[in-house]
Amino acid sequence: MSKRRFLISGSLKTDQVVDLPSEEAAHARKVLRLKKDDLVELMNGRGLMALAQINRVDKKQVSCLVRKTWQKPRPLPKLVLCCGLIKGGNMDLLAQKFTELAVDEVRPFESLRSVKKLKNPTERIERWERIAGQALKQCGAAHPPAFMPPAEYTEILEAAPPQAGKVMLYENQEHKTLAQVLTELKDKQEIWALVGPEGGFSSQEAIWAEEAGFIQAGLPHVILRAETACLTLASLVRFRL
Amino acid sequence: MSKRRFLISGSLKTDQVVDLPSEEAAHARKVLRLKKDDLVELMNGRGLMALAQINRVDKKQVSCLVRKTWQKPRPLPKLVLCCGLIKGGNMDLLAQKFTELAVDEVRPFESLRSVKKLKNPTERIERWERIAGQALKQCGAAHPPAFMPPAEYTEILEAAPPQAGKVMLYENQEHKTLAQVLTELKDKQEIWALVGPEGGFSSQEAIWAEEAGFIQAGLPHVILRAETACLTLASLVRFRL
Repeated sequence: MSKRRFLISGSLKTDQVVDLPSEEAAHARKVLRLKKDDLVELMNGRGLMALAQINRVDKKQVSCLVRKTWQKPRPLPKLVLCCGLIKGGNMDLLAQKFTELAVDEVRPFESLRSVKKLKNPTERIERWERIAGQALKQCGAAHPPAFMPPAEYTEILEAAPPQAGKVMLYENQEHKTLAQVLTELKDKQEIWALVGPEGGFSSQEAIWAEEAGFIQAGLPHVILRAETACLTLASLVRFRL
Repeated sequence: MSKRRFLISGSLKTDQVVDLPSEEAAHARKVLRLKKDDLVELMNGRGLMALAQINRVDKKQVSCLVRKTWQKPRPLPKLVLCCGLIKGGNMDLLAQKFTELAVDEVRPFESLRSVKKLKNPTERIERWERIAGQALKQCGAAHPPAFMPPAEYTEILEAAPPQAGKVMLYENQEHKTLAQVLTELKDKQEIWALVGPEGGFSSQEAIWAEEAGFIQAGLPHVILRAETACLTLASLVRFRL
């Protein structure tokens, strides 16, 4: 069984004593029944991990002594996933799955067929960050995705840097598969990927993306839902090679 | 915009007039506002597809004339996904996603760390079949997965035929990745894949699988939730090459 992990917002240094946040402490004590001397893993959500040993458990707090720390590198390539805004529940699901699949940045966009104007974008992003924080503890990744506020589709196209590999999932692309395009881009250190909302991209949007350097890629046999397409794309980038 | 698809339980022959099932007919008329002469796609859920033209829309029924039919082949390799039983909502999610990802057979199993004894397995399988039917219409795949009743883990190991490629996702496998194993199995016409429940496989279960010819495969960097691992595996089998 892997060690229990806890997300700590402050600093993490060897020989430092760290209190678990109160909600985590209650969980550690009542549900996980952790005891003095048990080993746990701490993480700061920015790549720093620590092995720590519990040195105090009482009703007020659970504290532990940091034994050693290490920085966990981000997997390569850097993956920036730009997805058309889809319905709320599915975006929540993606926040969790993108964390497991080590997506580095999530950039939702508004396009012709997307959900328009996210209500309360700041609240929604905070919600995705909370979901990602929970997922992080479970999956052992060291970095949650950075969630960007929703942008216009054309802003996203302009934001992609020249050196990045650029790919767009497009259901009307029948000649080139995603696997083929990812093979072309295999030496890139950074991949920007566009996945449309339910209903996909308009042909004009596909042209704009092509002009911005995005290579169209299709998936044979089937038409995936928007959120499934996002998961498939992230899986292939992370685990194909 | 792709054509509206409807699932028909009866036969489908050229020049035949087919009534949409009553629930589908109401949806076609009131929500989709389909009219006489509109073209639709029909499917029988067993690989047979038809192009049809609506020839009657009234409050009682929507009927259409079959213009042509074709059999859609299953994608290769055949994919049999054997997954440890996980919590209800996640199995429902998988029923939908497995349909999109053209999984051929789903064989849930009970193992040391899985959810024990599905309550009302017959009802649950019917539920998964309904979800798969809905997903089928949306994604344009021609075949839903066949959902098998839950079996004991060892029964699953014995059921895998000798000629199939066999792979097991195992978090303690650090030397061989899923992509490497799938490359070894790339000429197989049939893949059987084992994915553990939350908590994974015990070391004894891993040994049994190895003895039954399943090659262990790891996923670098992270530990995926059981349902994410299933989706990643199906994505890689379907779209990696």
